[in-house]
Amino acid sequence: MSLDRMIEKIAQLQNPTVAGLDPKLSYIPEYIREKALKEHGKTLEAAAAAVLEYNRGLIDALCGIVPAVKPQAAYYEAFGWQGVKVLAETIAYAKEKGMFVITDGKRNDIGTTMEAYAAAHLGKTEVEGEVLTPFGADALTVNGYLGSDGIAPVAKVCKEQDGGMFVLVKTSNPSSGELQDRILEDGMTVYRTMGERCEEWGKELPGKYGYSGVGAVVGATYPKQLGELRKALPHTFFLVPGYGAQGGGAKDVAPAFDTKGLGAIVNASRSILCAWQKTGAAPEDFAKAAAAEAIRMRDDILSEIGKISL
Amino acid sequence: MSLDRMIEKIAQLQNPTVAGLDPKLSYIPEYIREKALKEHGKTLEAAAAAVLEYNRGLIDALCGIVPAVKPQAAYYEAFGWQGVKVLAETIAYAKEKGMFVITDGKRNDIGTTMEAYAAAHLGKTEVEGEVLTPFGADALTVNGYLGSDGIAPVAKVCKEQDGGMFVLVKTSNPSSGELQDRILEDGMTVYRTMGERCEEWGKELPGKYGYSGVGAVVGATYPKQLGELRKALPHTFFLVPGYGAQGGGAKDVAPAFDTKGLGAIVNASRSILCAWQKTGAAPEDFAKAAAAEAIRMRDDILSEIGKISL
Repeated sequence: MSLDRMIEKIAQLQNPTVAGLDPKLSYIPEYIREKALKEHGKTLEAAAAAVLEYNRGLIDALCGIVPAVKPQAAYYEAFGWQGVKVLAETIAYAKEKGMFVITDGKRNDIGTTMEAYAAAHLGKTEVEGEVLTPFGADALTVNGYLGSDGIAPVAKVCKEQDGGMFVLVKTSNPSSGELQDRILEDGMTVYRTMGERCEEWGKELPGKYGYSGVGAVVGATYPKQLGELRKALPHTFFLVPGYGAQGGGAKDVAPAFDTKGLGAIVNASRSILCAWQKTGAAPEDFAKAAAAEAIRMRDDILSEIGKISL
Repeated sequence: MSLDRMIEKIAQLQNPTVAGLDPKLSYIPEYIREKALKEHGKTLEAAAAAVLEYNRGLIDALCGIVPAVKPQAAYYEAFGWQGVKVLAETIAYAKEKGMFVITDGKRNDIGTTMEAYAAAHLGKTEVEGEVLTPFGADALTVNGYLGSDGIAPVAKVCKEQDGGMFVLVKTSNPSSGELQDRILEDGMTVYRTMGERCEEWGKELPGKYGYSGVGAVVGATYPKQLGELRKALPHTFFLVPGYGAQGGGAKDVAPAFDTKGLGAIVNASRSILCAWQKTGAAPEDFAKAAAAEAIRMRDDILSEIGKISL
């Protein structure tokens, strides 16, 4: 009913990072794409097949190093239902390999509809008495613009399935301040207000290590706000995007952590996915290059925060 | 590059409503479910097959009466990738029957990821030079919490594909006010601020009838705010959920319209989908009952707003 499994995995591997699986075809070695094209022609099936092989290679190489993966739903949806099928297959494969899976869907809706999203991504669907798992991730990113109604159904499923969620608080993109940095009548920013809601919502999903099942997304590109929120939200675990390709470094993410090296999991997508291209590695070594970059990133962050203890 | 096609269809059919296709298995007549179960067993495939047959029946019955359908992505995702396949098939079928399709996905993310969502739901994906359509809806609902970065890629695809978007402004759920009704330092509510952004974003996507390609979601359950926003946002077309099962009536949605009967499209989901159950119709007449309820709803709203003219 919380993020405890993720936290334990972070401590076990001494690695507070998550690999974002945001596959674009241009990231995938030609030999994998060619094989898929030969089998399926120039179709969405071919794209999806290439993504699956690529993801499996990455997961095989990363599962002993990185505690979690974060597939970004958009990149799978861009390949149609065929891509969404590969999202499900990727989640299943990563879980099989012991990884914690965060589906990055930023889902949001009114209560009854949010029940369907929660069932879809974290829970179960019943078909005439048979209980089935549509996607089966361990955690889901959500958007809190609709208020508590849109969070409660996810919390309910998190409780039942031992899962968690991450609510968008201060996002990593350049225009995130347009609304999130605005100041409300009580003098508090919108992002801080959303953060305080996470603390409140999290009371229903307490965890063993002081952090609840309701985490927050806070971008590495805003280190000042990261530090402010870390102090203000002691029970809220942070998912921190924006390291690497988006410009954040180890010094930028350090304020997200508590004194035990807990409190945050830092995401990198492109820098890991495209490591083979950036380092000039052979295409066949794409996964090895990803693992090397994941180790470099881990060590970079650990050099700032020290040993992680539960 | 706007919502003009939808507006023309509304005027042609003299019907400012959209049927929400939010299928739950419990809404679907037993004879359809039984057939699917016989073919596929108690699986997500069976659920998806039942949903597709049900949706096709509804679309056949509604396409001459209702200008648009709004499939809610959550209900399809709850049946896994098999359900998402049926989302794509439902969209294709509705378009074939001449309906305007709004995918209700409330998608949101940073710029690069939003490009993938826009391509997925409204645009095209290229696979080795072949241009393919993943879902191909005419419009998409989006959440503006991330600011302009998350809107611009959708606007770009709307321009290319003659599509539109609806940004969440004031949602229909009970807790929508928690953030949306908060007042910012300049004295303006969050929802109004988001609404003003729609006017701004819409300038890039002007339409022939005074309304841009950037619409807003404003709930029928908040008629006062509907009226306020109609006056404040003269170029922003409203998608109005909350009529029927959520409690809104014709008098509640009337303030959403301009003097020509334009400016809003009112959604009903459960009241149409479950009309056969509510009226005690024979299961075989589910589509006929849906059409009758759609006509009742149309007439109910027209009785408040009068003739629709372009």
